[in-house]
Amino acid sequence: MSVCVMAGIFQRTVRLRAALRHLCPHSTLTCAARPSPADSPFLACGSGQFVASTRKLHAEPKSSPAAAPERLPFSRVTEEDLAYFRKILPGRTITDPDLVESSNVDWLRTVKGSSEVLLRPQTTEEVSQILRYCNSRNLAVNPQGGNTGLVGGSVPVYDEIILSTSLMNNILTFDNISGILTCQAGCVLENLSLYLEERDFIMPLDLGAKGSCQIGGNVATNAGGLRLLRYGSLHGTVLGLEVVLADGRVLDCLATLRKDNTGYDLKQLFIGSEGTLGVITAVSILCPRKPKSVNVVFLGCETFEQLLKTFQLCRGMLGEILSAFEFLDSECMRLLNTHLKLPNPISDCPFYIVIETSGSDPEHDSQKLHNFLEEAMTSTLVTDGTVATEESKIKALWSMRERVTEALTHDGFTYKYDISLPVERIYQLVTDMRQHLGDRAKSVVGYGHVGDGNLHLNITSPAKDPALLAAIEPFVYEWTAGCQGSISAEHGLGLKKRNYIYYSKPSQAVALMGNIKAMLDPKGILNPYKTLPDNLK
Amino acid sequence: MSVCVMAGIFQRTVRLRAALRHLCPHSTLTCAARPSPADSPFLACGSGQFVASTRKLHAEPKSSPAAAPERLPFSRVTEEDLAYFRKILPGRTITDPDLVESSNVDWLRTVKGSSEVLLRPQTTEEVSQILRYCNSRNLAVNPQGGNTGLVGGSVPVYDEIILSTSLMNNILTFDNISGILTCQAGCVLENLSLYLEERDFIMPLDLGAKGSCQIGGNVATNAGGLRLLRYGSLHGTVLGLEVVLADGRVLDCLATLRKDNTGYDLKQLFIGSEGTLGVITAVSILCPRKPKSVNVVFLGCETFEQLLKTFQLCRGMLGEILSAFEFLDSECMRLLNTHLKLPNPISDCPFYIVIETSGSDPEHDSQKLHNFLEEAMTSTLVTDGTVATEESKIKALWSMRERVTEALTHDGFTYKYDISLPVERIYQLVTDMRQHLGDRAKSVVGYGHVGDGNLHLNITSPAKDPALLAAIEPFVYEWTAGCQGSISAEHGLGLKKRNYIYYSKPSQAVALMGNIKAMLDPKGILNPYKTLPDNLK
Repeated sequence: MSVCVMAGIFQRTVRLRAALRHLCPHSTLTCAARPSPADSPFLACGSGQFVASTRKLHAEPKSSPAAAPERLPFSRVTEEDLAYFRKILPGRTITDPDLVESSNVDWLRTVKGSSEVLLRPQTTEEVSQILRYCNSRNLAVNPQGGNTGLVGGSVPVYDEIILSTSLMNNILTFDNISGILTCQAGCVLENLSLYLEERDFIMPLDLGAKGSCQIGGNVATNAGGLRLLRYGSLHGTVLGLEVVLADGRVLDCLATLRKDNTGYDLKQLFIGSEGTLGVITAVSILCPRKPKSVNVVFLGCETFEQLLKTFQLCRGMLGEILSAFEFLDSECMRLLNTHLKLPNPISDCPFYIVIETSGSDPEHDSQKLHNFLEEAMTSTLVTDGTVATEESKIKALWSMRERVTEALTHDGFTYKYDISLPVERIYQLVTDMRQHLGDRAKSVVGYGHVGDGNLHLNITSPAKDPALLAAIEPFVYEWTAGCQGSISAEHGLGLKKRNYIYYSKPSQAVALMGNIKAMLDPKGILNPYKTLPDNLK
Repeated sequence: MSVCVMAGIFQRTVRLRAALRHLCPHSTLTCAARPSPADSPFLACGSGQFVASTRKLHAEPKSSPAAAPERLPFSRVTEEDLAYFRKILPGRTITDPDLVESSNVDWLRTVKGSSEVLLRPQTTEEVSQILRYCNSRNLAVNPQGGNTGLVGGSVPVYDEIILSTSLMNNILTFDNISGILTCQAGCVLENLSLYLEERDFIMPLDLGAKGSCQIGGNVATNAGGLRLLRYGSLHGTVLGLEVVLADGRVLDCLATLRKDNTGYDLKQLFIGSEGTLGVITAVSILCPRKPKSVNVVFLGCETFEQLLKTFQLCRGMLGEILSAFEFLDSECMRLLNTHLKLPNPISDCPFYIVIETSGSDPEHDSQKLHNFLEEAMTSTLVTDGTVATEESKIKALWSMRERVTEALTHDGFTYKYDISLPVERIYQLVTDMRQHLGDRAKSVVGYGHVGDGNLHLNITSPAKDPALLAAIEPFVYEWTAGCQGSISAEHGLGLKKRNYIYYSKPSQAVALMGNIKAMLDPKGILNPYKTLPDNLK
């Protein structure tokens, strides 16, 4: 393909509708939009939508590793307990079932608890008082942030007390020399982003759920998202945490230092522990400067091999300005066209790439992008493409990647998998799964973060289909384990995947996790039934 | 200052001697260069050189928090033990005192153990056998990498068995798509760098000791170094670890995945634990692409405030290509001139800055640097400067920063401090210390990693001076704690600083560290007397 064609790509007007990024489902679905208790049946495992059938909790067969185990012998909330909570949290001890309801149900509407109490503390001291009391009374607690998790980790399984961080939403400090932000755990990610952008900084993480998810929950689940390729994981960017332990002790590791080698780095334990080891009440995080120039390119490839070669070329030629390298397959595009009426911005291809660059010099960035595209097209690695530099067009192109989840919900009941693999194996799982399932599935689609080796594999069927599920699992987990992959790249284990942990972690490691849990939360009151497998001693 | 002057800086020939980076002391001092046992007296705390006085171990007064505590009641090595070790490590169980000697003494020659056994395993299984045996026999073990640590963490305090990883030096795998390297713990950092550079990648960390230090030791001490500003800490770049626990169990967390949220991130516990929780036997690490273009600038500033403003300007204008921002003061320059005969490459100034850029396009990088220097000079933030783009000149400029440590050793007995502070407070500690000590100190110098908020404060005197030490400590620690700083930014606590941990960590956190130690190493055989304070229950 000639340079002229490439230049044409640069100038092409993006004809997409202004499908704004904030319209993606994670950020728009609010509690109010959820079904009321009266019309909200549920199921307790797998993924997908509510299935309107019975009111029985956890409809999944008990034999499924994803099903909830028996309720553990925690105390039940009494009137005396409520009186205590009302005393320390006047007006913020919620027991009205209509108000508690939305906190009992997860975003995917696949897990529903039956908690009768929602506590909304404002301070670390209040969280401490709550946990000290619950621990002494042997009351189970479900810590909850924005409740946007996808593995049933953020809602109660039975009658656990819901401890919401939503009212802990103060920004504490921001240092515009170092870029270090400290804030309470309940700050919504998008609000932090807006606050920082006014000060010429950005958050080191970004994800579809940003309009609802909270930084405390992000840290508790070690959220990945779209910027990980560039800014790394939260294990590197989180500099400090304040955590309330199960017995109410406050662990103050809220350092605002880039480097600190005084003893063991305890905060790391809580990053990704899904609220099972402590309740994160404040976060200190290192924020990058806001890039002066952002470009997004949408490209088409004939084969996944060419897509990988494009990735390598891209890393070499875009180097330090590369901030995202995402992909979707033609099946994703079909769902976007069919269910969301989003037209393909380029010609039809088997694979599509979304590349984002972020840099400090618009001219340099354009030049690098130009050189890369020229090379990618003359070497026929990519067959078509379009570029966006304006905010609205950037959002429109991003929506092709970000709205796949939404398109899937319109396609039927969805079985969702979030897999880490050596990058060269990523798409083979989709191909193998398609072949393995034959016409038993409606759609088998692959998309995700190529740059991070992270595949989102989604399989739909017209309705919930236990036979299909049995064909998918444990096939998908065994396939992943065979490549030394991870069965949960960024979503965590929560309730749904806790018992699959052994596919990615040796028993020695899982046993040690159990020891750590027993050390920090001997009564097991914090987010029970989550993360760790049922068969742990 | 005009653009012409700035352009002059670009063209100026660097007149420095070709003072090669690898000539810095950390990388050239080898075991053979150390004094033989017959002429090597020692002291056991503080810092500085050997003091030729008595042969008594740990000459530091027992009252000093840095002094070694009493020997704990571990078993002593018997002939039976040696027979066992010789059986599993034939030819690699070293008991010749002359050969064990260099492993008994730390690089600064301030701590000296009296171990009589040096074990040199080659495999993880051998490490496992050693620890299983030592744990059952209650024999203490000192894990040792390149022995380049600065806080007495890498050598035995009494007769601990030295477990060296030096022969565990195989590269296991390298994936040139993802940039993920796995290798045994004993690989020397510089060897890994050379291996990667041939493949167009680099290690995410670099430090003066690279010619001797080993990746396992780097991870065990959470080494910082010169590239942290750009590539982040090892908590983010280390993707997996294989660790042998105190009882010989092998914990396999050697994942080669960028993302993995299946349970708690156990490997994080061992990063920075200084060999007290387990022996790291293999490492998986994410390596960046080798930059196509590297530039180094050496600048002079009139005030530290201007230096900080230069840092802010630099972050904005160099953005994604900034890879280091280091500083030294005029006292450092005086020592470089006096003791190493290194001439100042620019005119005399109170403060000097070393800026490194690393990028993928030489032209773009030059342009950015040009624009930045123009702005820095027209706004009179910097008063003089010189630029290097060629490898030898780059090394020469870097040596002005890297050889300060060496210059200090020629100035007298050195008290060394490695402090993390909010970046705007960094130099105030040097000024305050100078004023506080008056003429009691020979030199009080400050240099370090401005970009990371990390000050290396060094104080010299003609000889070891307990009165001077009493004037420095606890003043330096109290000052640091007053700013919520860290008393060890990157060096760790080891033997020397273990009892100062409370200046940077609350007792709640230290107690939890003790619980973790007790859980993983109930007999306390791994690197005793290190990291954790003596008064821990």
